[in-house]
Amino acid sequence: MKNAAVTLFIFISTFFFGQKKYVMVIHGGAGTITREAMTQEKENAYKAKLTEALKAGYKEFTYGKTSVEAVAAAIVILEDSPLFNAGKGAVFTSDEKNELDASIMSGKNKSAGAIAGVHTIKNPIKAAIAVMEKSEHVMLSGEGAEKFAKLQGLEIVDPKYFWTKERWDGLQKVKKKEAQNPTKISQNNLPASYEIDQKFGTVGAVALDRKGNIAAGTSTGGMTNKKYGRIGDAPIIGAGTYANTQVGISGTGWGEFFIRATAARTVAAKMEYLNKDLKTAAQETIDEIEKMGGDGGLIALDKDGNIAMPFNTAGMYRGAVSENGEIEVEIYK
Amino acid sequence: MKNAAVTLFIFISTFFFGQKKYVMVIHGGAGTITREAMTQEKENAYKAKLTEALKAGYKEFTYGKTSVEAVAAAIVILEDSPLFNAGKGAVFTSDEKNELDASIMSGKNKSAGAIAGVHTIKNPIKAAIAVMEKSEHVMLSGEGAEKFAKLQGLEIVDPKYFWTKERWDGLQKVKKKEAQNPTKISQNNLPASYEIDQKFGTVGAVALDRKGNIAAGTSTGGMTNKKYGRIGDAPIIGAGTYANTQVGISGTGWGEFFIRATAARTVAAKMEYLNKDLKTAAQETIDEIEKMGGDGGLIALDKDGNIAMPFNTAGMYRGAVSENGEIEVEIYK
Repeated sequence: MKNAAVTLFIFISTFFFGQKKYVMVIHGGAGTITREAMTQEKENAYKAKLTEALKAGYKEFTYGKTSVEAVAAAIVILEDSPLFNAGKGAVFTSDEKNELDASIMSGKNKSAGAIAGVHTIKNPIKAAIAVMEKSEHVMLSGEGAEKFAKLQGLEIVDPKYFWTKERWDGLQKVKKKEAQNPTKISQNNLPASYEIDQKFGTVGAVALDRKGNIAAGTSTGGMTNKKYGRIGDAPIIGAGTYANTQVGISGTGWGEFFIRATAARTVAAKMEYLNKDLKTAAQETIDEIEKMGGDGGLIALDKDGNIAMPFNTAGMYRGAVSENGEIEVEIYK
Repeated sequence: MKNAAVTLFIFISTFFFGQKKYVMVIHGGAGTITREAMTQEKENAYKAKLTEALKAGYKEFTYGKTSVEAVAAAIVILEDSPLFNAGKGAVFTSDEKNELDASIMSGKNKSAGAIAGVHTIKNPIKAAIAVMEKSEHVMLSGEGAEKFAKLQGLEIVDPKYFWTKERWDGLQKVKKKEAQNPTKISQNNLPASYEIDQKFGTVGAVALDRKGNIAAGTSTGGMTNKKYGRIGDAPIIGAGTYANTQVGISGTGWGEFFIRATAARTVAAKMEYLNKDLKTAAQETIDEIEKMGGDGGLIALDKDGNIAMPFNTAGMYRGAVSENGEIEVEIYK
């Protein structure tokens, strides 16, 4: 009866205000994704997996679960797929390892968890959530983080689990290019753009539960050929992930710029302090990153169920589900 | 002649506006520092070292050097002293190691560098600066960061260099207490406060050079008895360190709260978006951290040479130097 009333209310609100209320938004990475370079088969595979992730997240809500649980359910699907640069499909470091980062933030009390530089945790997002819920810390790294995850009963895998042919070939391609053109690069002397597979495919989700709590999560394998234990924006609260009572954000793209722009926090700050609407705040932040020389995209979901998914790359794997279970999935601009 | 004109201008401005212009502000950590627990000898030692750091930073300016160089000069003095929880005086992890974090941000172009979880780099702030200036990345961690620092010609030391009796005794004390009272703690179940030496002594500096560029840097050994490769706020851009063209900030305190509050970025965002003055923005941020249950302090310096040094602990080692070289150093409220 209560459910029927809720459905009726949703129907009436949608009818009168014409505004769809979303409960979850996800991304599977932004990059040089063009129709020309894509086969129909590959496109279908990506769309199917994004849909599966949205359904998994939405299902949690129908069980009355929290936004943190919905984010976890969606991200685990993407981590377990070789299609995305997170979990199973993580890219290789220069040392031929798969080095994973992830983070989560719950808007209600601004609690947060993150892990960086792990090689054996099957689902990094679960480890980030365990850090948030079961430790006094926000961020754990390397072997210590793996030890913690094991103690928490999370699934530990042989590092070989993360080996995929596509990512291995990607590393060889980047290394070959690097050997041919060993330019010294720094923050003040950057290439105009990177190889598509160098910083592509981070996954993320933002969800809004029935109690109005927003959670945002991000998971990644980082950049192909990354060196020296590089940590990108994905595990950095305020850069790749942020949530408060008003909005949640997950970023994907050239991580160094997302850190320097404190991207996720900037979206929230523009809303909190300047009263900007979600779409404006999100777009302005991507514009600022572009102005700095960076690229990428982000997804954001506010407390009223509005979404924004701006990006300045050719494409971004993305999708959203409304409160009545309607799913939208897109790839190109 | 030009210098004389500048001096005259400073004199006139100070005379007419009565406002002292600061060029650098530093901190050596916030915590339960009370007059009762302090000896005169110890107080003198802290004040002398803070003064030495301010002089070293100021000296760089007299040579026309940049704010980044001034921050480095001041922080190196503090890192090389066993008095502060950074470099030589770093606290011990649960695994009986000294695990160092540091970061730097230059406001002009928002370039940034950070290192986390290193054991052999004598001056972590120098490594953070090398990451900013010589790499394409913002954040490096663990052995990878050490490898990078070595390649950059930075001084590498035996991990034993960081052993000090005081920190070792501090770890034993905390471990003993932990064994007696093994309470399960998490972000939602935190002790009212930590042992003084568990999260105390992070150092930082913010400087404003003649060209108007602001740089902020932070360096720390983290929390005594930290586990699982814990990373605090010090190496997180937007949490422990932030700078833009308007203001620079370095934080010190209970790192987990500084991350969740995106403390340094929040000070800057309140100024950028709400037009709050430096003192208000800085104080409000510390108030927010207190409300969340955290404690600590921060230093901030704006483009006009105003400073703020709010903290909600009993004391904070802190000091500032004005453009004409006047030095102020304080410990208590």
